Amino acid sequence: MSMANIVVIDTTFSTVNMGSIICDQINSSDLISDIKLERYTVPGFKDLAAVARRSIDSGADIVLATAMPGPEAIDESCAKDASFGLQMVQALTGVSVLEVFVHMSEVLNADRSIDEAKLIDLCENRCREHADNALRMVFTPESMVDRAGSGRRQGGADVGSVE
Amino acid sequence: MSMANIVVIDTTFSTVNMGSIICDQINSSDLISDIKLERYTVPGFKDLAAVARRSIDSGADIVLATAMPGPEAIDESCAKDASFGLQMVQALTGVSVLEVFVHMSEVLNADRSIDEAKLIDLCENRCREHADNALRMVFTPESMVDRAGSGRRQGGADVGSVE
Amino acid sequence: MSMANIVVIDTTFSTVNMGSIICDQINSSDLISDIKLERYTVPGFKDLAAVARRSIDSGADIVLATAMPGPEAIDESCAKDASFGLQMVQALTGVSVLEVFVHMSEVLNADRSIDEAKLIDLCENRCREHADNALRMVFTPESMVDRAGSGRRQGGADVGSVE
Amino acid sequence: MSMANIVVIDTTFSTVNMGSIICDQINSSDLISDIKLERYTVPGFKDLAAVARRSIDSGADIVLATAMPGPEAIDESCAKDASFGLQMVQALTGVSVLEVFVHMSEVLNADRSIDEAKLIDLCENRCREHADNALRMVFTPESMVDRAGSGRRQGGADVGSVE
Amino acid sequence: MSMANIVVIDTTFSTVNMGSIICDQINSSDLISDIKLERYTVPGFKDLAAVARRSIDSGADIVLATAMPGPEAIDESCAKDASFGLQMVQALTGVSVLEVFVHMSEVLNADRSIDEAKLIDLCENRCREHADNALRMVFTPESMVDRAGSGRRQGGADVGSVE
Repeated sequence: MSMANIVVIDTTFSTVNMGSIICDQINSSDLISDIKLERYTVPGFKDLAAVARRSIDSGADIVLATAMPGPEAIDESCAKDASFGLQMVQALTGVSVLEVFVHMSEVLNADRSIDEAKLIDLCENRCREHADNALRMVFTPESMVDRAGSGRRQGGADVGSVE
Repeated sequence: MSMANIVVIDTTFSTVNMGSIICDQINSSDLISDIKLERYTVPGFKDLAAVARRSIDSGADIVLATAMPGPEAIDESCAKDASFGLQMVQALTGVSVLEVFVHMSEVLNADRSIDEAKLIDLCENRCREHADNALRMVFTPESMVDRAGSGRRQGGADVGSVE
Repeated sequence: MSMANIVVIDTTFSTVNMGSIICDQINSSDLISDIKLERYTVPGFKDLAAVARRSIDSGADIVLATAMPGPEAIDESCAKDASFGLQMVQALTGVSVLEVFVHMSEVLNADRSIDEAKLIDLCENRCREHADNALRMVFTPESMVDRAGSGRRQGGADVGSVE
Repeated sequence: MSMANIVVIDTTFSTVNMGSIICDQINSSDLISDIKLERYTVPGFKDLAAVARRSIDSGADIVLATAMPGPEAIDESCAKDASFGLQMVQALTGVSVLEVFVHMSEVLNADRSIDEAKLIDLCENRCREHADNALRMVFTPESMVDRAGSGRRQGGADVGSVE
Repeated sequence: MSMANIVVIDTTFSTVNMGSIICDQINSSDLISDIKLERYTVPGFKDLAAVARRSIDSGADIVLATAMPGPEAIDESCAKDASFGLQMVQALTGVSVLEVFVHMSEVLNADRSIDEAKLIDLCENRCREHADNALRMVFTPESMVDRAGSGRRQGGADVGSVE
């Protein structure tokens, strides 16, 4: 692909600037001269699907859709509605929309307060690793095949292959 | 955008006139001379998707879909069906439909009766803040990016960014 | 609207002839000379979406889709599949499909048997009130806006507005 | 309808040959000279939607989609994914796809083993009754309206109308 | 079918190279000279739908979509989102997408650790049996009908027909 259009969407709901982390990672890529990078911000995760769809209609080659669902059961339930919308966009268009969600439930202390250092760390790692995934998928999809079945995790330690 | 078509949909089920609050907020905007504001009312939240879709087919630039799900588990479950419909409209059209739902379960007293003052307050704040979101998304989308990751909440206190 | 095509769909599963009640209510309307009323019957609620869609493709201005989900959890779960189909039809077409479902779980006696008198009553009221909603939505949509936020319920006592 | 194309789909997962039962019932109909009957077999219920859709694209007037979900909660959960797919096909095409599912959970003994005689019986009855429904829907839809609200059940005793 | 385009998709999340197993099985088929086999790898199961859709748009006759959901409830819940996307692709296109998912929950030891030997075995068997299903569905669909109602299971012992 000569010039790739990559679109990053994040939310005002999130307490970490996830879109900036992804854009930073992409901008630091050797491939940046071949990338048209766009960024949009919406209120919350239920607003991702519309922007993903219209970005694709405007030529996006891949979309990264970030969000930070809250820690309660109702938050997780609503996050599923958002996932549904993103699945639908992909089924309708055939363009990949990477769901980069960091769930507050992943970083709760024993008293259910948020472990903020852990939250920032997880956002950093997951956003950067998915930015790398996006670059691979667009520019070197064969490098993804080389990683098939390797037990990779975005934002945590890889578990590796079972031999 | 020179002239924006904003569509507000509310329900006869709701016990607060949510559509009026949103229209009032939009009408008080400096941008009002550039807005064609339309309003529709349907019986309940499951009827929002059809009107959202036909408004978009008629040129809506953004839709605000309001509802007030009841306090029981069955009400929440049905609200998810409505959310599903709104996700689908957005995935199909690429036009944003802001889901402005005030859940009665958010304002219950200890005996599970409704705290009416709190309900009115929550409707007021959430409707007005989402009206502002809609205006930003249509007229100044870059102002949304400035707010990315800032932990905003519509209708309650913002939680702010984690630093 | 000069001539409106209203389509009513009901089921052989239901134990009350819900389609007849709706047709009776519509036929008694002053507006009947401006209405082309059609009626279809399917086995159960999962069969509503197909007929709704083809009615709309044939020119329906609004559809009323009735059903009577059984009293068990599995019945309610399947009713959600049916709702999903109806949401999808509306998201795809932009034509309103009023979901007129009377749940047996709404009319159970303490021993979980069906209170039949209450069931008939609920069907009567909900069907007629949704028939009226359909007429308003097609012929006088502004009369729906007048009712926004008024806490209306189809088939039970309205709860009114919170002031 | 002069010549109707009826498509029957079943699975290799099922332990009863449900497709054969339906085809047998349709072949014994007086209307058989007006029917082009086709049959396809897929691995499991999640594979029904694709074949239903392409059958409809090839001219099917109605589809019967059979399956036999296993007895565990996970089986029922997956069956809902399959139902979702069939709802979507119908919402997209407007062609009826009768879901003829026999759930193993309907025929469990007290020790949760399968009552095989009851399973065969239930398959026989549900398949034949839905084959009859399909014939009515295609050739004599008015005969379905005559049965509206009559409390019919496919595969078990009808419950009748509430008077 | 003279030349069939078969597409295999797997994930970097999986700990077993499921795509390789399927490709190996297809490559060992007598029919291989009539097959154009393609393979893609995505991060996780939520990324399958987009690639399935664009493969179909590029001419795929059948798609095999593999994944390995983790052992927790949240993993199963997310796997359902992925299934939803694959159902949607099939409902939209009419092309079969075989869902070849091996759930870690299927191979847990009593202490909820993974039985790795069992996991590899299950992947081997399910992938190869679904590769065979795909070949039958494309080249000899009548051979699937011969197996209708035979109680087949991919990856475990068949349960056989109930007589």
